[in-house]
Amino acid sequence: MPVNYATPAADQLLPVAGVRLGVAKAEIRKKDRRDLTLLALDAGCAVAGTFTRNRFCAAPVQLCREHLGGGREIRALLINTGIANAGTGEAGRRAAQASCEAAAALLGIAPEQVLPFSTGVILEALPVERIEAGLPLALADLRPANWHAAAHAIMTTDTVAKAASRRIAVAGKSVTVTGMSKGAGMIRPDMATMLGFIATDAAIAQPLLDRLVGEVADASFNSITIDGDTSTNDSFVIIASGRSGAAFASENDAGWAEVKAAITAVAVELAQAIVRDGEGATKFITVAVEGGKSTEECRRVGYAIGHSPLVKTAFFASDPNLGRILAAIGYAGVDDLDVDGVRVWLDDVLVAERGGRAAAYREQDGARVMAQAEITVRVALGRGPAAATIYTCDFSYDYVKINADYRS
Amino acid sequence: MPVNYATPAADQLLPVAGVRLGVAKAEIRKKDRRDLTLLALDAGCAVAGTFTRNRFCAAPVQLCREHLGGGREIRALLINTGIANAGTGEAGRRAAQASCEAAAALLGIAPEQVLPFSTGVILEALPVERIEAGLPLALADLRPANWHAAAHAIMTTDTVAKAASRRIAVAGKSVTVTGMSKGAGMIRPDMATMLGFIATDAAIAQPLLDRLVGEVADASFNSITIDGDTSTNDSFVIIASGRSGAAFASENDAGWAEVKAAITAVAVELAQAIVRDGEGATKFITVAVEGGKSTEECRRVGYAIGHSPLVKTAFFASDPNLGRILAAIGYAGVDDLDVDGVRVWLDDVLVAERGGRAAAYREQDGARVMAQAEITVRVALGRGPAAATIYTCDFSYDYVKINADYRS
Repeated sequence: MPVNYATPAADQLLPVAGVRLGVAKAEIRKKDRRDLTLLALDAGCAVAGTFTRNRFCAAPVQLCREHLGGGREIRALLINTGIANAGTGEAGRRAAQASCEAAAALLGIAPEQVLPFSTGVILEALPVERIEAGLPLALADLRPANWHAAAHAIMTTDTVAKAASRRIAVAGKSVTVTGMSKGAGMIRPDMATMLGFIATDAAIAQPLLDRLVGEVADASFNSITIDGDTSTNDSFVIIASGRSGAAFASENDAGWAEVKAAITAVAVELAQAIVRDGEGATKFITVAVEGGKSTEECRRVGYAIGHSPLVKTAFFASDPNLGRILAAIGYAGVDDLDVDGVRVWLDDVLVAERGGRAAAYREQDGARVMAQAEITVRVALGRGPAAATIYTCDFSYDYVKINADYRS
Repeated sequence: MPVNYATPAADQLLPVAGVRLGVAKAEIRKKDRRDLTLLALDAGCAVAGTFTRNRFCAAPVQLCREHLGGGREIRALLINTGIANAGTGEAGRRAAQASCEAAAALLGIAPEQVLPFSTGVILEALPVERIEAGLPLALADLRPANWHAAAHAIMTTDTVAKAASRRIAVAGKSVTVTGMSKGAGMIRPDMATMLGFIATDAAIAQPLLDRLVGEVADASFNSITIDGDTSTNDSFVIIASGRSGAAFASENDAGWAEVKAAITAVAVELAQAIVRDGEGATKFITVAVEGGKSTEECRRVGYAIGHSPLVKTAFFASDPNLGRILAAIGYAGVDDLDVDGVRVWLDDVLVAERGGRAAAYREQDGARVMAQAEITVRVALGRGPAAATIYTCDFSYDYVKINADYRS
């Protein structure tokens, strides 16, 4: 049961002109579930992606990097759930390649114009023949107003599909941004992967899009943690079809700030949805760190709090356990941190200052905040202008239960 | 219930000439339990320590650093359990100082010759008056053959006292090494601290001892992880009384290798005991990483495996979940790791090679190893001569239960 999240209705997920989606039941690992998704992009789309830094990255991630770097126009994305095609060595690379070839043959494009994505069980072989058999069904299903079905077809152990949409008016044009994501931990027994896909009908020049995908990822998918485990398949892609007629080539272009904000908002919503649906999560925690010398040190402090099993079990217990939060700040790796200058709030309650408990702090105020389903931990480092925000969830019996269950 | 660990009997803990220990019930936080320990050192002892890098370090840790750096001969250690005197600001520093003054007055030494240690609840004030009242009782109890009682008196939520002893013959002399430790997580609701104390009757020149304490800590207390949380009070001290007559001033001295090995063995045993008694631990895991370019990268890989909640819950479930181990290796931060060259064993079973599952691996062999109470994960990185070993435990329902229980 996700924390304050529900999948938007199908008609709330606005089509993005130039991007068609089709799904199919290919029986990749389970019968009678949608597990194959094809995105067909009209000619003229710009595409950029950012991928896991895990050295054991999956075969499809390797191919994505090659195809994006190869200079050919990307015309399709092929996504399967069930099998992650990770930890599969050379055979896995050949299977990912064969999937691209099958999709390319149907669409009349080159295999290098297809980006493949896989999510599911690690160390198992990808059944290429089932993908080949399912592809014609996905092809027949292609249409722009199909994000709702696609968001469901990319799920693994997610309990809800995750999707979001925004429409804004810029420079006399209407620009649409729609996206979907999946993930719920690194994940439930053997399931790996966070995937995020966002499409917009804005036209975005490739160099601008390449920078954008990194910046948006940093503000969204790279700012969440459930268990600190980085998967082998994490991928995030932005598609810019250009069909709205609103075109951007530089950060200074009129309307760009609004378009960037809309894309970032969709990404943050999709990333937060993953945390809200985190394994065993009962609470959604925002860790907002400010007053740092650099964004990097603010992120380190945020992640130290967000990763600490002690802090996360205290959230689960609704225990305003300040000592654990202070200790996490103290070991975050900010070597010259003056702890006497650090202040910490739970929502609006000042809980710590001058190296210890705030003088006016009363335990019942902390307990009131900790009992909520959504909590913001605000940390002021008091040493600079930088800030960063991390999103995480609590750590419950169910996390252990889900992850200790034998693979099924 | 610790994993394969029991406290040695009192007569197995050999006295170290020149070091007397006394314990008392001072009622610092709970009635009728030993909570105050005094170590009195004869003149001529060399002392060196290494301490937490947590920026929210406790007041006693700050004083230890000052007193060790002040050039006066250390003549006493004062340890209390119940209250950690951490996150207590300026008042905490005054309380630690007052404790040292009280001990010094009784022993006829200067306050700067006392090292104070506190462990227990964070953010609470240290009741100096109870320490002052308890000190005469501890003083009256001082004797060399008192390590067993002292190991019990420094416990917080440890389920067993942790102590170890070795005697070796070097250069015609008999050298004794005895130590004790405490800790069981960063720790149970608000309890903080890993403490380790080792005494030997070898004479060790101060520069050699200063190097030794860091090297021994790296091989022992700095190579364990239960939950990845670094406490505010972690301290490790070695005392060399010199009373055996065996004296060492250089790494090249005859017999030094043996003495160093004996001290390291005691430290590793004490550090492992902390993991074996880890909160909710049902298994003891050794992660041995070899073939790295540097010790640092081997430690990073070891800690990535040892910290991963996914790996730790798989150990709890006796699930030979290779994907999680490979993923942890992949995100350990060894940026140029060639995963095709990595091999992984569970005990003697080769489970992974060439980027995926080993060809000869059978699931039942992995399952057999995972069912054991003690498991070694061996990782060969295949890129250099360095190695490192990390000790950890599994992650069970009881960990969440212990840490989600409201502070009591």
